Amino acid sequence: MGASELTRPLAWIAVDWGSSNLRAWAMDAQHHVMASASSPRGMLSLTPAEYEAELLGIVDDWLPDSGQTPVMVCGMAGARQGWQEAAYLATPTRLDQLSRGAVMPPLADPRLRVYLLPGLSQTGSTNHDYDVMRGEETQLAGLLADTSRFSGLVCLPGTHAKWARLTDGAVTEFATYLTGELYQLLAHQSVLKHSVGQDDLQHDGCRQAFTQAVKATYQAPERFSQRLFGVRAQDLLANTLPSGDARSAVLAAHLSGLTIGLELAGACHELTPGENVTLIGNEALSHRYALALETLGIDTQRVDGDTAVLAGLTLAYQSTRQ
Amino acid sequence: MGASELTRPLAWIAVDWGSSNLRAWAMDAQHHVMASASSPRGMLSLTPAEYEAELLGIVDDWLPDSGQTPVMVCGMAGARQGWQEAAYLATPTRLDQLSRGAVMPPLADPRLRVYLLPGLSQTGSTNHDYDVMRGEETQLAGLLADTSRFSGLVCLPGTHAKWARLTDGAVTEFATYLTGELYQLLAHQSVLKHSVGQDDLQHDGCRQAFTQAVKATYQAPERFSQRLFGVRAQDLLANTLPSGDARSAVLAAHLSGLTIGLELAGACHELTPGENVTLIGNEALSHRYALALETLGIDTQRVDGDTAVLAGLTLAYQSTRQ
Repeated sequence: MGASELTRPLAWIAVDWGSSNLRAWAMDAQHHVMASASSPRGMLSLTPAEYEAELLGIVDDWLPDSGQTPVMVCGMAGARQGWQEAAYLATPTRLDQLSRGAVMPPLADPRLRVYLLPGLSQTGSTNHDYDVMRGEETQLAGLLADTSRFSGLVCLPGTHAKWARLTDGAVTEFATYLTGELYQLLAHQSVLKHSVGQDDLQHDGCRQAFTQAVKATYQAPERFSQRLFGVRAQDLLANTLPSGDARSAVLAAHLSGLTIGLELAGACHELTPGENVTLIGNEALSHRYALALETLGIDTQRVDGDTAVLAGLTLAYQSTRQ
Repeated sequence: MGASELTRPLAWIAVDWGSSNLRAWAMDAQHHVMASASSPRGMLSLTPAEYEAELLGIVDDWLPDSGQTPVMVCGMAGARQGWQEAAYLATPTRLDQLSRGAVMPPLADPRLRVYLLPGLSQTGSTNHDYDVMRGEETQLAGLLADTSRFSGLVCLPGTHAKWARLTDGAVTEFATYLTGELYQLLAHQSVLKHSVGQDDLQHDGCRQAFTQAVKATYQAPERFSQRLFGVRAQDLLANTLPSGDARSAVLAAHLSGLTIGLELAGACHELTPGENVTLIGNEALSHRYALALETLGIDTQRVDGDTAVLAGLTLAYQSTRQ
């Protein structure tokens, strides 16, 4: 879609550049999305020299003939192994000031000015461990679009699930849980791969297996490793399970509940009574976590992941103009 | 080594037939080992029709010209996907009666009489989960060689670590922890593979990282999943770690301590104060677990894995002759 096809003048471009893909949005002066484009080439498949061309490949059509368009980029493009390293900002970090840590890689094409936003780091202490995030800080910043002094506990489910404590619009503490990756490894590479299929939380048997596993592991996290083998043992011994695909679906839901239950056992002791959790992510994963949290009596509010990242990039763009 | 090369007459043959290998020992009438032989073909690489020939391939030389030699077999050869299924005996199980569950596969060669020993199963209840073991029950039986009414908590470290409560020579309860497999998956297939190398517990830095991780996870098992990512975050951020191979060794020891600490958090709450743990296994792994348990103030006694399996097979052989 050429610049002449954008319905209003291009003000800036929003970019989320992850490990495995690139997504860009053409933004107008009111920070509304006019168009979007994407490419499957993420940090893992690009050398530093290839980033500029890859970006132009999907946004070139949007660019006006003259002038320089700001591009706000969050995600792994700013990692050490990315385009250019935007060093972590150490917590506590005000989310309306991420752009202060942005770096601007040199470009051949004069029509763009690229800002690579920093991630966040946390130094280890007695209270919390070393930790890092890159990309999620921008989604967290998106919460400030509605509530500039946002306070609360936020969870971003995913391969490396993040939990962040926000206080007056700053990240004061955060933790990463390997939950998603752990589930994938166990379901596809471990002895459990013979037993675990594809779950469906709409299905009663799956939902029940999931919520029971969440509750049991939340109450006794030390039995997690034992319960993992129990998935296999149940498959071999239990005659109360359905058979075939229904069986492997129930066992998949059970395994999912074990891994998420372990994460919640670690993350939720931080909650003050009556405090809720804000979930940022895609529909399916947020629904899964909301079900788990509600099983434990914890209320949730959900924010769409893409909505959050665009709001966060908008905040960063606005702060570069101050 | 032919039968004429055995120093005394062959009384029976002991066999441990696992997933990945076959080991056999020529036993005299006093149950001493006269010779041993092995093959790399275990359950995973054999069809039922191939077992007899594979066994004869390594024991043929020991067999006298006439008569029938009993062969006591423990391990995966008796699994559903093995030679012939020797169905699990359900707990509680007296370890001096394993041979009652033995099956005798039909053989073409009249010089052998093969007993495939059963494994153990445990039905799920409010107190414990569904669980299975196959092969370890024979090592546990080996404890009865010295103490026929053995009582105590026993740990067999490994890919799927087993913990068993023995009461008066019977297994009353047991649990499997996926610890070894979890470590392998995390160290070699997850995001941590970039950080984790080969540890060496003789090295002070490794030993310290290991014992600290054991203690921290034992005290707070709910933080396990978070601490996993911490291995990566530390590698990226911590400037107190050594560099190069020493760094990846320390991080490997740290990861090992996390997974074993989680297992101990689950397994050791069963201990009465002052009770010790009997470890059965190979030298290196038993040493690692002993170090972990002693870090938590729990005394251990160690029994060599091969010694235990031979003693258990001997007990089973003796019970077939009653």
